[in-house]
Amino acid sequence: MLKFDEQKQLDSVNGALKLRGTVEAIVDRIVQEGYTDLFFVGVGGTYASGMQVVTYMAGNSEISAYAENAAELLTSGSKKFKKGAVMIFSSVTGSTEEMVKIVELAKEREVRIIAFVDKADAPLAKEIEGCISYPGNEQLKLFMVAHRFMYHNHEFDDYADFYREMEDSLAQALVDVEKKADAFGLAFAQQHEYDDLHYFVGAGTLWGATYSYAMCYWEEMHWIRTKSIHAAEFFHGMLEVVEKDTPVTVFVGEDAQRPLAERVARFLPRICANYTIIDTKDYELKGISEKYRGLISHLVMHAVTQRIDAHLEKISCHPMEIRRYYRRLDY
Amino acid sequence: MLKFDEQKQLDSVNGALKLRGTVEAIVDRIVQEGYTDLFFVGVGGTYASGMQVVTYMAGNSEISAYAENAAELLTSGSKKFKKGAVMIFSSVTGSTEEMVKIVELAKEREVRIIAFVDKADAPLAKEIEGCISYPGNEQLKLFMVAHRFMYHNHEFDDYADFYREMEDSLAQALVDVEKKADAFGLAFAQQHEYDDLHYFVGAGTLWGATYSYAMCYWEEMHWIRTKSIHAAEFFHGMLEVVEKDTPVTVFVGEDAQRPLAERVARFLPRICANYTIIDTKDYELKGISEKYRGLISHLVMHAVTQRIDAHLEKISCHPMEIRRYYRRLDY
Repeated sequence: MLKFDEQKQLDSVNGALKLRGTVEAIVDRIVQEGYTDLFFVGVGGTYASGMQVVTYMAGNSEISAYAENAAELLTSGSKKFKKGAVMIFSSVTGSTEEMVKIVELAKEREVRIIAFVDKADAPLAKEIEGCISYPGNEQLKLFMVAHRFMYHNHEFDDYADFYREMEDSLAQALVDVEKKADAFGLAFAQQHEYDDLHYFVGAGTLWGATYSYAMCYWEEMHWIRTKSIHAAEFFHGMLEVVEKDTPVTVFVGEDAQRPLAERVARFLPRICANYTIIDTKDYELKGISEKYRGLISHLVMHAVTQRIDAHLEKISCHPMEIRRYYRRLDY
Repeated sequence: MLKFDEQKQLDSVNGALKLRGTVEAIVDRIVQEGYTDLFFVGVGGTYASGMQVVTYMAGNSEISAYAENAAELLTSGSKKFKKGAVMIFSSVTGSTEEMVKIVELAKEREVRIIAFVDKADAPLAKEIEGCISYPGNEQLKLFMVAHRFMYHNHEFDDYADFYREMEDSLAQALVDVEKKADAFGLAFAQQHEYDDLHYFVGAGTLWGATYSYAMCYWEEMHWIRTKSIHAAEFFHGMLEVVEKDTPVTVFVGEDAQRPLAERVARFLPRICANYTIIDTKDYELKGISEKYRGLISHLVMHAVTQRIDAHLEKISCHPMEIRRYYRRLDY
């Protein structure tokens, strides 16, 4: 299979899950000392990952949690971003300008920081006490933090059981999803390689995945135009520009907002003949209990879209690592 | 001037400002009785108006305020949407399915409601105690509510002075903006009538305006494809798909996030020859103090875009009131 190293992926997910002890130690200390609000801060893809966590927390927790774009926080700001607040972020390089600046601001305001910086030798990583360095798996890391806070708030009593299942079965289940999705990924890439504009629709904890897949993968890495739209908003404007040939893909997950994505999926065939439904329910996830499937829908979808990316990169002859402007020009 | 009745617009804005006594009576009673969180709830354009208020409040108030899409609130929900919370919404028809249902849920949970329903005889309006019925000016109404809560929280000491200025000068200032923007509106409509895809970029209190202008006006009413992108996110993906001929419009306001929009405006000319900057700073706003200009940038931008709409409707021979699918099909 193209761009696929089974053992490496198993190790990657299992290694991320093993960070839990470290995450718990950090969160437990903060809970003991007391805190006010949680800020999941990022830019682009990392901001999108924060949105996913916060959507989940809103429906399941009384903790005040915000998904914030670092650049917005640096300008208009938040009055609640102050002593007592906790900033949680994940960064690959640790060098994104906005993230470097927001860490400075957090320190100035005595906001505590829980940080994941993939590169252990990034200057930013060294500046933050107890920064966790481990590559990839950003979504898993952020949810681990949220779950631990919720566990202490008696809002996730299944915590131990859920993570035991994840440790036993998640890595293999995601690898199996990739294998099953591979043929679909190729067909999808072939069908949409030359799209002028592709619409991605999603909801719930998958909304962040939808937003970032469109922007960080298709726009940034494949240089194909997209619009991402929340399934709840689809019927309030965007539907009017969909015609028979318009490429529209709906991400359907198994969390609480599933009915919103299903509604779009049900409606589309009436007005469009170029739509695709990607439903996490179509993937088995061996060893994962029914009640936990919604909690990892975003990971399942990511496994599916990875197969699209692998094939799209190859058939379009456009290596995903090249950038036209990003970090190549000053702005 | 096309689709422009000066006296009617003056009366409309001044009439909306006169609702303030009623708004104050409602808010003052809630403040006296105590409250926990504010939920600005909507769908589509009304959701976008809520986003504007919440962005403003985040930076200027300690009050917990959330912008929520009604459909999301009805599915994944919010644990904080319960007794003690206050739901604020504005609706033109009072018949949008999601809004009707969210009012039911709010009542069930004993969430207090501050409602603006344009049609006084809408069933929804009759169901809500003290519902305010007055046409249009949604953004003004929602900010009036927010400002009164903030006034009581000692976060807007200029409250009386600000609204005195608005009552004296806002309506005329906005009419003057429309007059000044008319020639621009025509030229812009002529240049972009046949766009395959138009990008709108904005930030801060103008982000809601950017999002809803793209979706509720160009997509829903003009049937032209758009993508709206937050200026803070522009550099994290979308920039890669901009080429010389790509139509990109940046909304630049005068609120705290102005630097984010300015950054995109400064960068664009290097990679694009089909961009437009609409800057509220280019409009005089007679009688409005410098320090209050940022508080009404979204209204100024709306006055400018109204001129685009009037001309675009005429030259494209596409009446803005027709819908292809919205409320014409079941979904």
